[in-house]
Amino acid sequence: MDEFELIRQYFTRTLTDSDVRIGIGDDGALLRPAAGRDLITVVDTLVEGVHYPLNMAAADIAWRAVAVNLSDIAAMGARPRWMTLALTLREADPDWLADFSDGLFAAAAEHDVSLVGGDTTRGRQVVVSIQITGDVDPDRVLTRSGAKAGDRIYISGTAGDAAAGLELLRSGTVSSDTANELVDRFRRPNARIALAQAIAPLASAAIDLSDGLYADTLKLLQASGAGGRIAVDALPMSAALRAEFDAQRARQFALGGGDDYELCFTLPAEEEPRLSEIALQQKVRLTRVGIVTDGIGLDCTDNGAPFAYLDAGYRHFDAAEKAWV
Amino acid sequence: MDEFELIRQYFTRTLTDSDVRIGIGDDGALLRPAAGRDLITVVDTLVEGVHYPLNMAAADIAWRAVAVNLSDIAAMGARPRWMTLALTLREADPDWLADFSDGLFAAAAEHDVSLVGGDTTRGRQVVVSIQITGDVDPDRVLTRSGAKAGDRIYISGTAGDAAAGLELLRSGTVSSDTANELVDRFRRPNARIALAQAIAPLASAAIDLSDGLYADTLKLLQASGAGGRIAVDALPMSAALRAEFDAQRARQFALGGGDDYELCFTLPAEEEPRLSEIALQQKVRLTRVGIVTDGIGLDCTDNGAPFAYLDAGYRHFDAAEKAWV
Repeated sequence: MDEFELIRQYFTRTLTDSDVRIGIGDDGALLRPAAGRDLITVVDTLVEGVHYPLNMAAADIAWRAVAVNLSDIAAMGARPRWMTLALTLREADPDWLADFSDGLFAAAAEHDVSLVGGDTTRGRQVVVSIQITGDVDPDRVLTRSGAKAGDRIYISGTAGDAAAGLELLRSGTVSSDTANELVDRFRRPNARIALAQAIAPLASAAIDLSDGLYADTLKLLQASGAGGRIAVDALPMSAALRAEFDAQRARQFALGGGDDYELCFTLPAEEEPRLSEIALQQKVRLTRVGIVTDGIGLDCTDNGAPFAYLDAGYRHFDAAEKAWV
Repeated sequence: MDEFELIRQYFTRTLTDSDVRIGIGDDGALLRPAAGRDLITVVDTLVEGVHYPLNMAAADIAWRAVAVNLSDIAAMGARPRWMTLALTLREADPDWLADFSDGLFAAAAEHDVSLVGGDTTRGRQVVVSIQITGDVDPDRVLTRSGAKAGDRIYISGTAGDAAAGLELLRSGTVSSDTANELVDRFRRPNARIALAQAIAPLASAAIDLSDGLYADTLKLLQASGAGGRIAVDALPMSAALRAEFDAQRARQFALGGGDDYELCFTLPAEEEPRLSEIALQQKVRLTRVGIVTDGIGLDCTDNGAPFAYLDAGYRHFDAAEKAWV
């Protein structure tokens, strides 16, 4: 048995989902979909040195790889169910693999996701592709394309923390509690699965914040054939972000920084009153940051006055790339 | 719009499957599964220089990447439906991408598979991960684990051609028609989708031939908790293989060579008479190569006498790796 056969053992754990009729070990996984529900499939790849720093812990890489996919599942209002892993490695290092698989299963366990298959290959660079399939009530699907003029634009949690954390990681100055808090937002993002399902009956459109608040909100508006306006003075920012960076940089992270994996969604004004109860139940801050218009593009205001913002778009370490789903 | 945003355009074509409710362009693909059917999911990664030669045409790389997954779908007796692509590129070369997407869509069109999503990233080496999801009648699933002592072992088509073709490619001696025929078996494998569904009601177990006849048959037997015996003198070999290589090397390719993507299956003796009609309908040669025993491991015979065969296992260019599903 060669080393790559052995690798499989790191990813074989007892399955608890009875709808996984056959998991790892045959030519394919055999899965039983829930009657009457549609499927949502998402796939995201992390390339070493491109999407995460070379010195990032294996468990954190795996966690991130799962979380970014969960966030896409959330953005569709779906429930995640099954996951596959395509993993390209330079070598089969047992410590790295044990750590990686711990991070992978920990992130998956948060949302009862089963690893049902995968492929391990050797290459010159670590490449982690994860695909997650979930299911959704066909009448409760969230898409990017339903926003209408007059709808309110909301985001969950706080914006800019993950990008600020990455900046601190890069500059090597992570000494305070608040700095660690920001770094953790980059290392261990949490997808808004439960929240997305709670807002699905009210929301007209949704997208997850992976490329930055400005860029992703603009994508939602473009998909909806609408324009919008956001109030940069209203952006929810964490105390940690404000402690570590001055007001101007903090705002820059909040508008342009990626990797937060919060939810951006729109809803008609008349549904707004129902949000406070959802925020309370879900223990999450929901902040109105703007409004959908019948224009084109996304404008910014600062305390009511026009605010010029040129979005550089979020760019990873040395590459620009796009997930299509 | 950056180059990686442009890449998406190479992979966006009109969808004809009405069960793909949302394809490329939102946070996830929205798919409607057929009522009463189970899902089969498979994933396989091709790494440049590991699973295919560096000078292989982009269209052939893409075809192969699709075909190896289709073959896993076939081995489960399923119908392929939806595909995603995780593609890591060194650069965005328009010619290469146009060629790659042509090969991808051509292979998918053979079996009415829709590309519903993907992710494009930049890296130091080309890595192509494809995942295909299909569906299957829950009562007609083929697995590796149902073979029983006394069952006959069959394979479709001919064995060893693809490995022989790869050998010719490596040595650079592809001048004759028969050599080209073998190379084409490596370049453009065809998954046995229709055949697998036809034999599903009769077969007790199945696996596709990716790592070699000996290695894959052994895997089927091990999964079934059985042993087996194959007659190396009965192995179906193409005229091209026999023309290009002497008898001993041809046999070596047929037993140990991978990448044929033919089907190996077992069935009870009483079902054998029904195979000739299926072979005729499917226009494919079906050859009985051996028998399942209540022993352990896989023995070989040559005209009835024991034949010592030490399987080296199929190894790609510079790596050994395993697909788990």
